[in-house]
Amino acid sequence: MKFSIAQTDGNARAGVLVTGHGEIPTPVFMPVGTQGTVKAVEQRELEELGARIILGNAYHLYLRPGTSLIEKAGGLHGFIGWRRPILTDSGGYQVFSLAALRRIGEEGVRFKSHIDGSEHVFTPEGVIDIERSLGSDIMMVLDECAPFPCTEEYARQSNDMTLRWALRCRRRKDQTFPRYGADQSLFGIVQGSTYGRIREESARALAGMDFDGYAIGGLSVGEPEETMYAMTGVCTGILPADRPRYLMGAGTPRNILEAIALGVDMFDCVLPTRNGRNAVLFTRNGRLNMRNAAHAGDLRPVDPECTCYGCRNFTRAYLRHLFKSGEILALQLASMHNLTFYIWLLSQARDAIIRGNFAAWKDATLNTLSAGGADINNESL
Amino acid sequence: MKFSIAQTDGNARAGVLVTGHGEIPTPVFMPVGTQGTVKAVEQRELEELGARIILGNAYHLYLRPGTSLIEKAGGLHGFIGWRRPILTDSGGYQVFSLAALRRIGEEGVRFKSHIDGSEHVFTPEGVIDIERSLGSDIMMVLDECAPFPCTEEYARQSNDMTLRWALRCRRRKDQTFPRYGADQSLFGIVQGSTYGRIREESARALAGMDFDGYAIGGLSVGEPEETMYAMTGVCTGILPADRPRYLMGAGTPRNILEAIALGVDMFDCVLPTRNGRNAVLFTRNGRLNMRNAAHAGDLRPVDPECTCYGCRNFTRAYLRHLFKSGEILALQLASMHNLTFYIWLLSQARDAIIRGNFAAWKDATLNTLSAGGADINNESL
Repeated sequence: MKFSIAQTDGNARAGVLVTGHGEIPTPVFMPVGTQGTVKAVEQRELEELGARIILGNAYHLYLRPGTSLIEKAGGLHGFIGWRRPILTDSGGYQVFSLAALRRIGEEGVRFKSHIDGSEHVFTPEGVIDIERSLGSDIMMVLDECAPFPCTEEYARQSNDMTLRWALRCRRRKDQTFPRYGADQSLFGIVQGSTYGRIREESARALAGMDFDGYAIGGLSVGEPEETMYAMTGVCTGILPADRPRYLMGAGTPRNILEAIALGVDMFDCVLPTRNGRNAVLFTRNGRLNMRNAAHAGDLRPVDPECTCYGCRNFTRAYLRHLFKSGEILALQLASMHNLTFYIWLLSQARDAIIRGNFAAWKDATLNTLSAGGADINNESL
Repeated sequence: MKFSIAQTDGNARAGVLVTGHGEIPTPVFMPVGTQGTVKAVEQRELEELGARIILGNAYHLYLRPGTSLIEKAGGLHGFIGWRRPILTDSGGYQVFSLAALRRIGEEGVRFKSHIDGSEHVFTPEGVIDIERSLGSDIMMVLDECAPFPCTEEYARQSNDMTLRWALRCRRRKDQTFPRYGADQSLFGIVQGSTYGRIREESARALAGMDFDGYAIGGLSVGEPEETMYAMTGVCTGILPADRPRYLMGAGTPRNILEAIALGVDMFDCVLPTRNGRNAVLFTRNGRLNMRNAAHAGDLRPVDPECTCYGCRNFTRAYLRHLFKSGEILALQLASMHNLTFYIWLLSQARDAIIRGNFAAWKDATLNTLSAGGADINNESL
């Protein structure tokens, strides 16, 4: 993997990430395909709407359908029929949020599957092996995502172990090889909860391990928005400038633009697809709830400037009818639209960085996005 | 509307139906888009998989979103963004199967909406007015679909009223005009339950009313398969040869091929889409239940000869994974596949009629379709 920065504007960066499955202009939004599909969107539609990289999840895919089938299919790319890059989350977050009866120890974590209760162990080495089997272009280390809130004591001990796990992942990567001909890189994950000093230590220690890129984890988990920005800033102030930075799980358009201003390059979030399935649509003038009676007779597209399949062909009135009637097409159109919006927003951000007026563009854009009366802040739908 | 028969082979007919929204080669399978969408399939995908005409339902669309909105959008074609022909069922069947507290009288039927309990009246004239508002290329008369089983007495009285309603629909059509520039034709519907003599009377009486086409209703409602064929044969033996014939709501591949042999030209059924959503996939070698463990490691497409998006890009193992994981993409791929299969099957039937070996082709095809051990008969999933 190669990462080059084409332009900076303040702390914001416009770059290009080159992987074995293609180039990714950054800042980039990565649609979430947890179980090997981005919910309600076809792979060819992801290409159509401009997705340059998608996420998979090692925890989910390891449990179902299992790595041996995915290996047989030529890795995750082959199994799901996706030609562009894939980043796989290690599943640390899912082990700690979904699985039952976790027992965490130095060696790793023992847990029961949320699907069938079967018992499994994730070690740092084992997770790298799984991600090798998946053939992801970008692998993530196994980490513990500390809950919010947690004590400083807990955050420190948890992060110390996460750092030891990171080093074991880093070594395992060196001892193993890509499985399907394309390079596989590995990102470390900064933890430390809302404690700036732990975040600093974490970022420094990981930087010393020479990862291909660095993620900021354990944020967007319920802490105040300002805390998320403060912690992100602490991390980006320390992480090496020549490596990509990825803020995991964030977030709203505002979250993303503020994090870009702080020097973050990569984002993933279920917000556009989950909101879409709940009839909440992003537009250049704020959010619309398509179930509202206000849209019942509205023959305009959701967003006249949007290039998505839905906005090119259908009206708000039709989309509302589909939602009110419980039709699957509503989920398809809304998911495609919201992903198109997110990807458009990040491409606009990149253009603004290259033009050198990112800060002004960001303020104007956030202003417009909230002008329609729809609150785009602090809502975690 | 113009209907011409290019070739006959026994009683089977290969024809072309010309409407204001395009030509339809017959025999034709019409995907069901009850509420203004074929479940889980995009309009552009319907075009891609070769759908030449789709169904809408006057009962559903009248109740939600209502005809005034659809008129504002330029008719159903404009509202749902579909450029090819549309046939609308009058909603008679739905009034009698879904609505509550029906009171049937000579004038029409009073019922309560299954959505909100509101009270409505459908008269033959009112239903034609609704279908004019929808702008359907082919309108259906209001009929009573007699339940199975019912007494001969009930069937006769019901059919007598259905015939009086048909005449009122026919007159209303003459008194009114197409709304959106394209011609709108009207089909009568033969009823008579499983009583051949009533069916004969019904077909003769309707033929005398000079409809643009004739449907055979009240079958595929639970009667034995042989009875369905017998009743269909009674109808096709009487209905005018120069008009299209439409067997409503049927059915399995076998039902359709047997009805083509009896001289039927048009078909609609929820079977391919509903089966698809239930993980039952049609193939050239019989049906597959994609939830079966047998497909878990199978890296072949569902049907290697199929041209659908799923078969061109994904494996049985992936589709099974999507079903087991509860992913929406499973419903999309399975629905597209099954519609592609039905449309392929009817195009093959048409080719066989033109070649003049329909009977032999039908027997060979039904043999192959059931060869895989999957029972394609008598199953109403």
